[in-house]
Parts: sequence; structure tokens; C-alpha cells
Amino acid sequence: MEKAETRYVADSRTQQVQIVLPQHANAHKRLFGGVLMQWIDVTAAVTARRHSCCEVTTACIDMLEFVAPAYVGSTVLLEGCITHVGTTSMEVRVDTYAESLDGNRERVNRAYLVLVALDEQSNPVPVPGLTLVTEEEQEEWKAGVKRRALRKERRAARY
Amino acid sequence: MEKAETRYVADSRTQQVQIVLPQHANAHKRLFGGVLMQWIDVTAAVTARRHSCCEVTTACIDMLEFVAPAYVGSTVLLEGCITHVGTTSMEVRVDTYAESLDGNRERVNRAYLVLVALDEQSNPVPVPGLTLVTEEEQEEWKAGVKRRALRKERRAARY
Amino acid sequence: MEKAETRYVADSRTQQVQIVLPQHANAHKRLFGGVLMQWIDVTAAVTARRHSCCEVTTACIDMLEFVAPAYVGSTVLLEGCITHVGTTSMEVRVDTYAESLDGNRERVNRAYLVLVALDEQSNPVPVPGLTLVTEEEQEEWKAGVKRRALRKERRAARY
Amino acid sequence: MEKAETRYVADSRTQQVQIVLPQHANAHKRLFGGVLMQWIDVTAAVTARRHSCCEVTTACIDMLEFVAPAYVGSTVLLEGCITHVGTTSMEVRVDTYAESLDGNRERVNRAYLVLVALDEQSNPVPVPGLTLVTEEEQEEWKAGVKRRALRKERRAARY
Amino acid sequence: MEKAETRYVADSRTQQVQIVLPQHANAHKRLFGGVLMQWIDVTAAVTARRHSCCEVTTACIDMLEFVAPAYVGSTVLLEGCITHVGTTSMEVRVDTYAESLDGNRERVNRAYLVLVALDEQSNPVPVPGLTLVTEEEQEEWKAGVKRRALRKERRAARY
Amino acid sequence: MEKAETRYVADSRTQQVQIVLPQHANAHKRLFGGVLMQWIDVTAAVTARRHSCCEVTTACIDMLEFVAPAYVGSTVLLEGCITHVGTTSMEVRVDTYAESLDGNRERVNRAYLVLVALDEQSNPVPVPGLTLVTEEEQEEWKAGVKRRALRKERRAARY
Repeated sequence: MEKAETRYVADSRTQQVQIVLPQHANAHKRLFGGVLMQWIDVTAAVTARRHSCCEVTTACIDMLEFVAPAYVGSTVLLEGCITHVGTTSMEVRVDTYAESLDGNRERVNRAYLVLVALDEQSNPVPVPGLTLVTEEEQEEWKAGVKRRALRKERRAARY
Repeated sequence: MEKAETRYVADSRTQQVQIVLPQHANAHKRLFGGVLMQWIDVTAAVTARRHSCCEVTTACIDMLEFVAPAYVGSTVLLEGCITHVGTTSMEVRVDTYAESLDGNRERVNRAYLVLVALDEQSNPVPVPGLTLVTEEEQEEWKAGVKRRALRKERRAARY
Repeated sequence: MEKAETRYVADSRTQQVQIVLPQHANAHKRLFGGVLMQWIDVTAAVTARRHSCCEVTTACIDMLEFVAPAYVGSTVLLEGCITHVGTTSMEVRVDTYAESLDGNRERVNRAYLVLVALDEQSNPVPVPGLTLVTEEEQEEWKAGVKRRALRKERRAARY
Repeated sequence: MEKAETRYVADSRTQQVQIVLPQHANAHKRLFGGVLMQWIDVTAAVTARRHSCCEVTTACIDMLEFVAPAYVGSTVLLEGCITHVGTTSMEVRVDTYAESLDGNRERVNRAYLVLVALDEQSNPVPVPGLTLVTEEEQEEWKAGVKRRALRKERRAARY
Repeated sequence: MEKAETRYVADSRTQQVQIVLPQHANAHKRLFGGVLMQWIDVTAAVTARRHSCCEVTTACIDMLEFVAPAYVGSTVLLEGCITHVGTTSMEVRVDTYAESLDGNRERVNRAYLVLVALDEQSNPVPVPGLTLVTEEEQEEWKAGVKRRALRKERRAARY
Repeated sequence: MEKAETRYVADSRTQQVQIVLPQHANAHKRLFGGVLMQWIDVTAAVTARRHSCCEVTTACIDMLEFVAPAYVGSTVLLEGCITHVGTTSMEVRVDTYAESLDGNRERVNRAYLVLVALDEQSNPVPVPGLTLVTEEEQEEWKAGVKRRALRKERRAARY
């Protein structure tokens, strides 16, 4: 099968920057959660497209915590990378940072999303494997196996 | 303390309707995940405001699965209700349905969010307790306790 | 004809909530009239879809007064209900409330819209009749007859 | 009082053009009513600012009929002009045309809005009178008197 | 060839007004450059459609300087007119003014755009010539010839 | 003066990705020029913030050509880098690519923008110099000198 080859994490790593405008903020000038989610979703989709060379769809978003707020005027940096792959699914981690003018980055959010590769009839298709290079990549893969089990467990338990 | 009273689930139940427009959809005319997340976030925030009578902020979104797609032209119905409360935090469930013209509703998404009540200095404040009436409300409370433990576990484990 | 049955007002009653964000407001942090009109239009369309089980289009908006302003940060609640029906047209009332954190609701707007049910070729189709239950529903129907006459009169007079 | 002078209709006449993009349309590629209302509101506000030299707020929108649809890709032209003035209020007519590529204009909507001039504390302030020049302007003024009476009547009758 | 006739500058002159809302502004309440560019693009496209009676596409935007800022709450006026035409291309000038409440207009931007007329297969088609009437129109045509040469030079030089 | 140090081009290089959604496109499903300009503006602003460690404002956009269209569904990649600096101004190049699913990138646009660094009173402030490393960076600097002269010339000539 043609897609059997594997790819590196670095091949699909994706960056996005945004400046928080008043239209992205709530009444307290904090970046609105729903807007951030939209940026995370686009970043994850591009990462997954780059890994799979396919159209993709978001199937699931793992526990997503808002660690710190980002305010109007901030530069926001999003970074997506593949952390685990199944047969037709890819787990993507998207880290979001508020970047101050002096260059410091504070992480405001870390999200794990599961996306599925689709063919032109919108049916799932196999995705390339992942060649793990760094120790961090290997750690994330192992954690990805646990997150996957946890998701399955949660789904079964219906709570 | 004045906020010690409890409230019913029904007191804060919240409904929102939307019609999926081309501006909400991706290239395949499917409702874009990020837009749905924005609607979910607003619905959850109003539910939590109604329970706490306070300003609120979203702290965490639990596993959020896209069960079925919604398409351009669909009526989308979102329903939020409180499922569990802590000292200053509220767990809100938001169910999303695609409603066809003949009135059938198909659930496309179920999300659990944790929101925190804030005073005017943006510090967390205690929220009212929850008086459980129906069996379903009691089941959800128990499941909420489990989800809360799971979130703590996940946070500690850092995976 | 299959659509000859009648329906209750309660069958199509529709609620929507919004939080007024800076992107919805003018320079004075007041909810922009045009944005409110968009929310009213969606609420009315869902109400009319639920009554007619058809695609609908807005034909006319009756006198729409902005009684009180809503400000950035407010919860806004919109409620739509059918007040009168003709052969292919439905009159929908949409009330808009600003909901304060302590739960008080102040009505900021009341609008009457006329929507027409459409088949798949975008031609008008008959809509179900309306079974009036409460006294308020009966009063509204009578007032709806007057509003309809007034609209006809206005149209003829061209002023 | 400094604002006692009168002004011509031509002094505040206002034009706006838009191209209907997919983000402005519903699932049938027709310009969404709510979006058109937003454009009408801006056009009316600029017209009233130009007449009053003041900040303004929309108080009321008269019967607004959607005569014909505009589709994605159309040029839409909006024209606002003052038709009647009271002490602190101005009635503005906004005509909306779909302009085809060969230059033909079809009117898709005519709206009458009432706007109030505001000082810096958001209190109503007197507006200049209107010097009527053409016969059409005089006809519109007379019709404006009738529309005003009708609005008062409707308001009193609460239907 | 049917399109050989020429047209006047006045035939396609186009006006647009906007009110700068918080959603159009950056964190300092200044009109965001990118939003202004979008308004300029629409104004230029309508001007070029009116001259060519064709669908058009933007090919190039000449040096665009932000002379002065516009702030939230300002009325912004955009004026487009044809300044030069080639075989299938039109140069459009769009001037942007901030209009204060007392009616003063300060120019905040002047842009020159080149748009190409397209037939239904998206191929370039000839556009009508331009009959120059005023001295200003003749000056602009001459300057347009220079701007065109400059653009060619810049393109060749690749700097 | 504290800002006298210089920085590398690589220090401020900035990437942004977008997926073209229907809300970003015109009636022919092509990415709307005005939307692309907004993305370019944000990318340039982040690049200039990263170089200057200051708030910035866009002063000028050089000739901006739309070489090829991008369509709904495409991944769009924008890359910004500093090409030249003056005392308080920075020239930023933003290249835009349409990225196909198989990973090919076609450049659809190249823009040069001039941004000015601002202090907290919105006055221009000196920016760090640029240490040129690669041959391409040196070529771009030389071309940047020419583009700067050209802009001055154009401004003086008023055509």
C-alpha cells in the first residue's frame, strides 16, 4: 500500500501566530476561549494534513485547560506536532503561548486533538507511521498510548 | 455567607439555536469544529452565570467528541445544564443537536466544561450548591465526581 | 393535503442566548443594532422552521423599537414564538432581554417578523394552522390580524 | 441656539456599496436578511451623523420588506437620505439595490429608520431642520408625518 | 468588437461609508490596516465592475501608505475612480477619508489598484476606453502611465 | 542607547498557516484579496514586533501582486522576515504560499511592508540593526535600499 511509509514529527510541525484584537476578546479584554479553540483547530488540521497528505476531520479534543489568559494586544503563538498515530487517526498536540514584546513566552494552553484522514468520498484512510527521533517524541508517544486508552475507557463508561 | 443557598438544575438550564451558514462551514459544507466550540463556550458561560449569579471563566474543556457532522442549512440546538459543582467551580454539560426540518434531533456532540465563578477583581468566589431532583441529575452528579477525579489524575500524570 | 394539521405555539417556541462581546458593540460599548437584528433574524427563522417543518425566508420586519440598550458583557436572551399564521406566511414575535447577573431580565426589544415557508424550488407552501391555548395567545392572534391589515394598508399607501 | 440652522437633504445623502460574499449568504446563496440589516443600520447612521453633526443611535426601524433577493456575487448599493426630522430625531430612508454587471439596478429593499442625535453624555440633542427642495422631498416629508403618526398609534395600541 | 466604446470616469465613480467599530480596530482603538485593505478592495472591485461591466479580479496593489490613523467611532469614507485603463486591465484609485462629526474630511490613505476584467471562464477580456474630461483626470492618466512603467520596471528588477 | 544591539534575520522569522474557508472566499471560491491582506498584515506585525521588541504600526505596503489564486480548502502558509531596517522603521517581506495536500508549495503573493516601532506614547523609537548572514539576506538588503529610494521618489513625485 502506497501510504505505508513513515514520516518524521518535524515533517509536519506547524506554527501559527495571531495578534489578539478586540474582536477576539471578551468584555474583560481576555482572549475568548472559543476563538482560541478555532485557532487550535486550524493549527491541528494543518499539522494533520501535512502528516497524512490527506483531507482531515477533527474527531475528538482531549482535556483542554486554560492555564493562563492572553490579553488584547498580545502576540499568540500556536505550535502543532504529531504525537501519536493509529491506522487512520492522528493525535496532534497544540501548544499555545502568549509572547510578550521582550520575547518571553508563557504557555497559556496545551491541547491534544484526534484527527482522522479522509479520502475524497470522506471515508477514513490509512496514515503514514511516525518515526520517533528525540527522547521527547518517544515519551509523548508512550503518553499518547495512555491518553488513547483513557479516551476509550471514558467513551465506554459514558461518564 | 450569602451564597450558601443551593439552586436547581432547572434554574440555569440554557438553550441556544443557530442556523449553519456558509461562514460557519468548511470547504465540505460541514460545520467547522472551531465555530461549534465557540457556540458551546457561550452556552456554557450563560449556564454557569445563571447558576452562580457571577461573572465566569472557562477553566477546562473535557473530552469533546464530534459524533456526527452538521451541514450548512441545518438548525443546530445547544443545551447547557449544570452537572456538578465544587467550591468555586461548576461543571456544565453542553449537548449539541442537528435538528432536521421534520423536527428530528440527532446529537452531534456532548461536551463537559469546567467554569469558575469570579468576583469583580477576577478572583474565584464560592458558588451555590446543586439540589438534585431527578434520577438523571443524580447519575450525572456521580459521573461528575468521576470525571473530576479523572481530570485531577490526568493533570498530575502530565500525559 | 398533508400539512393541514394545526400546531401549538409551544411546539415552535425558540430560545437563544448570547453574550455581548466587543465585536458586537459600537464605540460606546452598546450592542450594535445591526448585530441584534441578525440574532433576531436567526431566532425567528428557527421558530418558523419548527412551526412549518419547511425552509423559510424573511419577507418583512415590522416596526422594531430599541427600548433599552444592552452593553458589552451582558447576557442577551431572545425568545421567538408564532403569533399568527396565514396560508403560507407566519408572523413571529421575537422578544429580546438583557439578563443581569442576578437574574433580572429587562426587555430591550420586541420585533414582529413575517416569514414565508418555501418548498425545495423556493416556492411558497401552505403552513399548519395555529391552535391557540392561552388567553395571551388569543390576544396576540387578534393583534396579529390588526398588524397584518396595517402592513397591507402601509404597502398600498406607499408611505 | 447654534444648531437652529437647517440643512438640505443633499448635504447628508450617503452611498455604500458591498459585494455579497459567501460569508454574507445563507445556504441558498441569498444575502442573509440579518447582514443586510447591519449594512442598512450603518448607512442610516452615517446619514444621520451627517445631518446632525452628532453621535446618533437607532431608535426604531419601520416596516422593512424584502422585495427581492440578492445573491452571492452581486454588487449591492445602499442609499440613505433624510426624509423627516423632529426635535431630536431624524427619519432616514435607506434604499437597497442589487446592481447587475450591465449596470441595471433592482430595488431589493426600502427601509425607514428613526435615529436620535446624542450629546457626549448620550442625552438627546436638537437636530437642524430640513430645507425641502424637490417635489419628491416634499412628498416624502408629508409621508413621513403619516409614518410618524402611525408609529405613535402602533406604540399606544401595543399590537 | 462590442466593448470598443469608451466610458467616462464619472460613470463608475464609487462611494462607500463605514463606521469604525471595535471589531475593526487594534488594541489601541486604531482602525486595523488589514480591515481597511478589505474595504479598499471591495470599493475598487465595484468601481472596476462598473467600468467594465464584467467580473473582475485584483492583480496588484500599488504602494499604499497609511498617512493618518482612523479611530473607533469614526466615519470612514472611501471613494474609488478609474485613473487609467489598458487592454484588459484598469487602474483604480481609492481615497480613504476619516470624516469627523462636524463634516471635516482628513485623507488617511490613497491606494492604486490594478484589476483585470474576466469573462465567465475567468479569462481576461478587453475593457472600454476612458474618455478624459477634467484636467485632473488627464493628469491622473499621465501619472498612471508612469505608475504602470514603474510597476513593469519593479517586476523586471525583482527587487 | 540600550537598543543599539543588532539582531539576526532568523530571530524574528515568523510563520502563519490558515485554511481557506468559505468565509474567506469570493463567489468563485477564490481567496478574497482583502482577507489575504489582513493575514499578511498580522504576519508582518509579529515579525516586526519580534525584531524591535516594541509595539509597531504599518506605515506602507509596497507593490503587492497576486501571482496566483488560492482556493477554498487550500492550506495557506505565510512567512515573514525582516529585509531592511532604518532608524525607526523595518521593511518586512511576507511570502504567501498555497500548500497542496501532497506538500507542494506555490507562491501566490510576495509583499513588502514598512512598519514603524512605537513607544508607549505611540512615538517612533529606534530599532535594532540587522546582522546579515546569508548571501540572500545581503541581496535583499541591497534591494531594500533600492525599494526605499523608489518609495521616496514616488512619494515626492506624487504619482
